Amino acid sequence: MQPDAPAVRRRVVIVGAGFGGLAAARRLMHANVEVTLVDRMNHHLFQPLLYQVAAGGLSPSDCASPIRPALKGSPNVTVLMAEVTDVDAEHRQVVLDRGERLDYDSLIVACGAQTSYFGNDQWEEVTCGLKTLEDAVDFRQRFYAAFEAAERTDDPDERAEWLTFVVVGGGPTGVEVAGELALTARGIAGHFRRSDPSRARVILLDAGDRLVSAFSEKLSKKVADQLASLGVTVREGARATEIDSRGVTIEVAGASERINARTVIWAAGVRAVPLTDAVARATGAKTDRAGRIEINPDLTLPGHPEITVIGDVASLAGSGGKPLPGLATVAIQQAHHAAKAIAEGKPGASTPFRYFDKGALAVVGRGRAVCEIRGLQLWGRPAFFTYLGVHLYYLGGEAGRRLDVLIKWIGARFGQRQSALIEHQLDRVERAPPPAQAVR
Amino acid sequence: MQPDAPAVRRRVVIVGAGFGGLAAARRLMHANVEVTLVDRMNHHLFQPLLYQVAAGGLSPSDCASPIRPALKGSPNVTVLMAEVTDVDAEHRQVVLDRGERLDYDSLIVACGAQTSYFGNDQWEEVTCGLKTLEDAVDFRQRFYAAFEAAERTDDPDERAEWLTFVVVGGGPTGVEVAGELALTARGIAGHFRRSDPSRARVILLDAGDRLVSAFSEKLSKKVADQLASLGVTVREGARATEIDSRGVTIEVAGASERINARTVIWAAGVRAVPLTDAVARATGAKTDRAGRIEINPDLTLPGHPEITVIGDVASLAGSGGKPLPGLATVAIQQAHHAAKAIAEGKPGASTPFRYFDKGALAVVGRGRAVCEIRGLQLWGRPAFFTYLGVHLYYLGGEAGRRLDVLIKWIGARFGQRQSALIEHQLDRVERAPPPAQAVR
Repeated sequence: MQPDAPAVRRRVVIVGAGFGGLAAARRLMHANVEVTLVDRMNHHLFQPLLYQVAAGGLSPSDCASPIRPALKGSPNVTVLMAEVTDVDAEHRQVVLDRGERLDYDSLIVACGAQTSYFGNDQWEEVTCGLKTLEDAVDFRQRFYAAFEAAERTDDPDERAEWLTFVVVGGGPTGVEVAGELALTARGIAGHFRRSDPSRARVILLDAGDRLVSAFSEKLSKKVADQLASLGVTVREGARATEIDSRGVTIEVAGASERINARTVIWAAGVRAVPLTDAVARATGAKTDRAGRIEINPDLTLPGHPEITVIGDVASLAGSGGKPLPGLATVAIQQAHHAAKAIAEGKPGASTPFRYFDKGALAVVGRGRAVCEIRGLQLWGRPAFFTYLGVHLYYLGGEAGRRLDVLIKWIGARFGQRQSALIEHQLDRVERAPPPAQAVR
Repeated sequence: MQPDAPAVRRRVVIVGAGFGGLAAARRLMHANVEVTLVDRMNHHLFQPLLYQVAAGGLSPSDCASPIRPALKGSPNVTVLMAEVTDVDAEHRQVVLDRGERLDYDSLIVACGAQTSYFGNDQWEEVTCGLKTLEDAVDFRQRFYAAFEAAERTDDPDERAEWLTFVVVGGGPTGVEVAGELALTARGIAGHFRRSDPSRARVILLDAGDRLVSAFSEKLSKKVADQLASLGVTVREGARATEIDSRGVTIEVAGASERINARTVIWAAGVRAVPLTDAVARATGAKTDRAGRIEINPDLTLPGHPEITVIGDVASLAGSGGKPLPGLATVAIQQAHHAAKAIAEGKPGASTPFRYFDKGALAVVGRGRAVCEIRGLQLWGRPAFFTYLGVHLYYLGGEAGRRLDVLIKWIGARFGQRQSALIEHQLDRVERAPPPAQAVR
């Protein structure tokens, strides 16, 4: 540790380069502090478009932008590709995966959420998550391989299983991926000779009584209607009780039911990454059921004004007493709140954080969405363009890149997508689905 | 097996959807035969641009196009994603990886080449090949991870090792990748704070006495000059005798020398895929040292007029007695020669194949190339545009897609490539390079 002499610039360590961490680093780019941004990846993931990568409409690089160029030209920010494994709050150090230690005067914990199976960790093996770029690429391979397997088999039951896709979780991600898969399956129908992808079934399971429950009932209804028109089978009140490589067992109104399907997408839950446990241990902070750290209204930890926790790992109630949602806008606003104070020479913010609600949005299929902004409810095409604008304006990377993706995305939405359709199935046969019946 | 009744259409099985296999399938699309095209992947790989994926200038999907759309609208072609494991020449069947058997009346073997380590298979572990899309993506991850590792370490020797890239093999692929890496390293220099990627060394090893020996001596000299101007260190007459994860031992003029480097690219040799051994066993055909099958001048196997072997797995002398090179144009012309005869109702071609030499080309860095077309020698920018035109005109996929890639590629060549530079390093830290020294 270096002595806290006035000549030495304050050291800020930011853990995680998601929406929150990157926003904090950018806000501190020219401040009189020495910043180290640590992330396991050297790219920032634009998660709202991840479902598009999963369905093959976008390339992985379209929704991941490199961290370094986003911070280029800033002499006070160092980016390290490394994993933070522990926090030593007493000595004010974070510990990296190879044992290195980084000193900090201020620490911003913004390491985000990961997929949670609610205690059924064995389901990780048999389902596809949708939280990381690897998840999306992996799913895409399995998705297209399913059509190949359906083409290869002559057994009608097996073919039906390959052409059945179950999406677990009726939140925005589940809705978006279900709509996209239904449309994609229809789009590639002409490419196969022996099977018919347009007969693929996409089943969306929601354990609650309505989809996208963060929205109003009216919009939930709109979403269900739009999904139905895309051919998605929506099962509300359906809780998955068992998942294996051949399908899902659900409980609906007390009765058990089996859905045979070779591909199951898990979009039902997230929890904070395990590092939050280490932070809690080191600081005495409490975590909630989802692993998130309970923080002060100013975003710092009780007794540790130099540790700020933001984004999906922070548990904080909003104005109405409800926890703030796991949205990029929340993380970004929190980052700015903390970074502003740190830039002013404080260890962290000391005034309460106030969330300015920019609303919530979800895309349903191509060119349709629902959104709710400050009491205003939109659906269909107007909502979609609002979604487009908000995502690309508020959340994107450099301007040029943003425009690229916009064009590509609109093309994917409205245009022909032939070339994008199957090309992404880059998997070898060996890694593809289990044996099918003999072909003749 | 079905009886050979006139009412039954002749069955053609094509193994491999590379340049040769795909060209054969397309030529037979509307012929009075029943075609099954089998490939381990469901995409066709545009190998000449693979080095661009490796360096991060193109996305994997830019140089892979889906097979099915390329054959769309043809009622007589079935595409199967499967691996052919054996050929039963007696019963005229190919055997797939799950034991299924496909009957054929005509068989076209076009399964291509894979990386060869000339008996040093242990080098596969410590080098990166450049033959498949996985190879390219894997290398790209290692390439960018090397800069991250250099940024993370404080040990100058280790940093230099991470910033040294050795390319083994001075053929067109080795030359292309070496030039591209040197330029890419220079391009990302501004993104790092503690290390300087512009000081990266790219060393190209060639065991022979000159680079790209398929070209004239004059063009070999031009290539060496152009590479030198890009900052590539060319070592001619340097044979790799030992490769491990820390570097390469070479033998130059009888003396042994060690080059410390954490990243080694193997571009030194290919051999036919192992299926050729099965074909040789089944038919009594001979294979050459590189595993290629020796064929009749009409491209069929001795004693098996119904089996045609084309492309990189075929060993056939050209007009001058020299073996035909492993080029896409050779495979495509052979495919057309065989398919024409098959479309006419014959089991395979019975007239000798004549190769129409369209020349050879290699890119050196950005906007520069060498090419040799029917005695005409070009270099520098004119050669580059010839290369561009030839590749995109003769070898590309659908027209729209071709234009897309052209634009993107020219952009990558001449323009700024900031966003493409690091984004492709999608690897997790855990899969990244071995431990570096502590940071603090």
